[in-house]
Amino acid sequence: MIEASSSRHYLDWAATAVPEKASLTDGRFVDSGDERRLFGNPSSPHTEGRMAKEALENARSRCALVLGVTPEELYFTSGGTESNAIVLHSFLLRRGKGRLLYSGVEHPSVRENCRVLENLGLHVNTIGVEKDGRVTGDTLCRALEKYPDTRFAAIMGVNNETGSLNDVEGLASLLRSNQKSKNGFPVHLHCDLVQALGKVPFRLDDIDSASFSAHKLGGKRGMGLLYLKKKIQVLYAGGEQEGGVRPGTEDTLGALALADLLERRASPEIVKEENEKARLRFKYLIGELRKIKRCALIPEDRENDDGRFSPWIVQVRFHGVPGAVMVRALDGEGIAVSTGSACSSSSPERPVLSAMGLDDSARLEGLRISQGWSTETADLDALLSGIENVLSFL
Amino acid sequence: MIEASSSRHYLDWAATAVPEKASLTDGRFVDSGDERRLFGNPSSPHTEGRMAKEALENARSRCALVLGVTPEELYFTSGGTESNAIVLHSFLLRRGKGRLLYSGVEHPSVRENCRVLENLGLHVNTIGVEKDGRVTGDTLCRALEKYPDTRFAAIMGVNNETGSLNDVEGLASLLRSNQKSKNGFPVHLHCDLVQALGKVPFRLDDIDSASFSAHKLGGKRGMGLLYLKKKIQVLYAGGEQEGGVRPGTEDTLGALALADLLERRASPEIVKEENEKARLRFKYLIGELRKIKRCALIPEDRENDDGRFSPWIVQVRFHGVPGAVMVRALDGEGIAVSTGSACSSSSPERPVLSAMGLDDSARLEGLRISQGWSTETADLDALLSGIENVLSFL
Repeated sequence: MIEASSSRHYLDWAATAVPEKASLTDGRFVDSGDERRLFGNPSSPHTEGRMAKEALENARSRCALVLGVTPEELYFTSGGTESNAIVLHSFLLRRGKGRLLYSGVEHPSVRENCRVLENLGLHVNTIGVEKDGRVTGDTLCRALEKYPDTRFAAIMGVNNETGSLNDVEGLASLLRSNQKSKNGFPVHLHCDLVQALGKVPFRLDDIDSASFSAHKLGGKRGMGLLYLKKKIQVLYAGGEQEGGVRPGTEDTLGALALADLLERRASPEIVKEENEKARLRFKYLIGELRKIKRCALIPEDRENDDGRFSPWIVQVRFHGVPGAVMVRALDGEGIAVSTGSACSSSSPERPVLSAMGLDDSARLEGLRISQGWSTETADLDALLSGIENVLSFL
Repeated sequence: MIEASSSRHYLDWAATAVPEKASLTDGRFVDSGDERRLFGNPSSPHTEGRMAKEALENARSRCALVLGVTPEELYFTSGGTESNAIVLHSFLLRRGKGRLLYSGVEHPSVRENCRVLENLGLHVNTIGVEKDGRVTGDTLCRALEKYPDTRFAAIMGVNNETGSLNDVEGLASLLRSNQKSKNGFPVHLHCDLVQALGKVPFRLDDIDSASFSAHKLGGKRGMGLLYLKKKIQVLYAGGEQEGGVRPGTEDTLGALALADLLERRASPEIVKEENEKARLRFKYLIGELRKIKRCALIPEDRENDDGRFSPWIVQVRFHGVPGAVMVRALDGEGIAVSTGSACSSSSPERPVLSAMGLDDSARLEGLRISQGWSTETADLDALLSGIENVLSFL
């Protein structure tokens, strides 16, 4: 049995969050009484089913209130990966109707599904990103000029490897004005907001669809949300659950737990407050990292306090030390960090860093540090002294 | 708030099972300590990730042991619906390579996905069933003769509406001998075993793939298993989790809970024992139902104790009383039953009963009674007296 040492410093919150204390058993939203009371299948017309359905719709309304949308626009899914897949694979039903674009820095659950669609004969291309990993109005316009038959664009809110922040509302407005001026087709804007939820402010009004995950927010695994401004016909069929958008018996308790979590962590006021705390902590960390001779930020011009990036994630490199070596060495020092996405940790490639124009050595050496709600300065100091120890013998 | 009366009799276990007492918080497999200890992303290479990965693989091995397969043949999914969809949609990557068949009584998560594939241009047809809802060697052979380019057949183990039981091992052996004698292509046999797990004995050796759900066994929602004798390339892409077969961060605690549940409910010895208890309880119930003048079984020739059917599910009808009316009326008597699948409860059609050749009135009047591990004779007596009450004023 692998055992964690008594004192660990977890700085890999972008991979998964430390769960809220006893989130599964917290009496406020899921206790064993609820589990017995709300076990019915929400599609069943009897009392047990109707009680479950009522609880499920209550959870949906509470989630909608926090996210500033209507309950009809939210669908419970099994996670961010599935939410992305539902939207992307729906294009198989609209074969021949225009082109799909995705930014060069998307999460594997967007990127890989886009590649599957391309292999199946759909017209799929990438949107380039700036050196800071962001999709700007300029890069988006260039893509739209090159591909005037574009009907869909997947652009994430916060990059999971570098923290690069996209102004999704601004990009949405650009897509709309581009359509009007060119008299073209409307372009559906899909945003993976998994790393944004509870961490950076966003508005859903102008976006066509968005994906969210519970476990990145400290909630349970196997639970996510899909926001759809307009209902779409989906590939993945079955029962008529979730308005036909996501078949399978609904996880009533998971939905209630997610509603509770969103209320406590994702309201605009709380996000503003926690974002500010995270900003101050990482301003300190990045300032200290800069003092380490072999350390460089990715991208190099990221400032200690830089509005182009989410303050919850930073990508750095230590010259001469492969990122994977650093992860193992720091693990020995009691510190958990990562290289890129956990979802592609088995691959040595770093497509996100490639898209940013970084060379082989930077891709090899890239290291991700990501913080969470309970991260303290003591964790950051432990990381800094861990790095110092590791570098002293490497 | 809808409130269940203090004394309810739940006889809709095929829709969802009553959860095991405090299954989420049972100290044996998931306590708040585990939740904190095993929170890491199993794809992360650090200690937290490796602990989670070890627990996940431990859960997989335990599930495999109960099901008599190797851990490499099992994949954790979000449920039976997704397990079916993964296998079916993988055919979009093998376009043009032969025909898919599905039995006329499959669950919506098989039937509806097959229809999607058909609409996308794949060659898809149904396998007819006998009047008892079963796929026999004869019906399968007729389908294979008619469609010699068949490469795939979806045949469920236990029908979710009538309990009709298919001899999937026998059908698998027929497919193999048919291939040999005709020198034809191998036919992949996929079995939805959601209503079989923990309830009727089966062997996976001869089957190519099978789907399972945790919540039908009293486990948590959003958790399922896919058995694949040989790994397939799947449509749904993302991270490399679950060997690339099912992307998305794995639900470690859900997997551990499922392993625990399988050990307690799905070992061959326990299934044999519980199946026998269920058989005796429903032999009694069906015998009593027969005494009710307006009651008929579906199909009419189902015996009190009939090897062609799972003893956990029975479909009946009350002449002159629509099934939906009976469900509502019995609900008022404190009894939960259903018509067909909860997954298609919003639809008045009954494709399973249609496939069995039943007329409009039978389809309208069909009512499903399904029992579970904690069902007692008292529940059955309550149902019988409830029916009597309802019929007295209808």
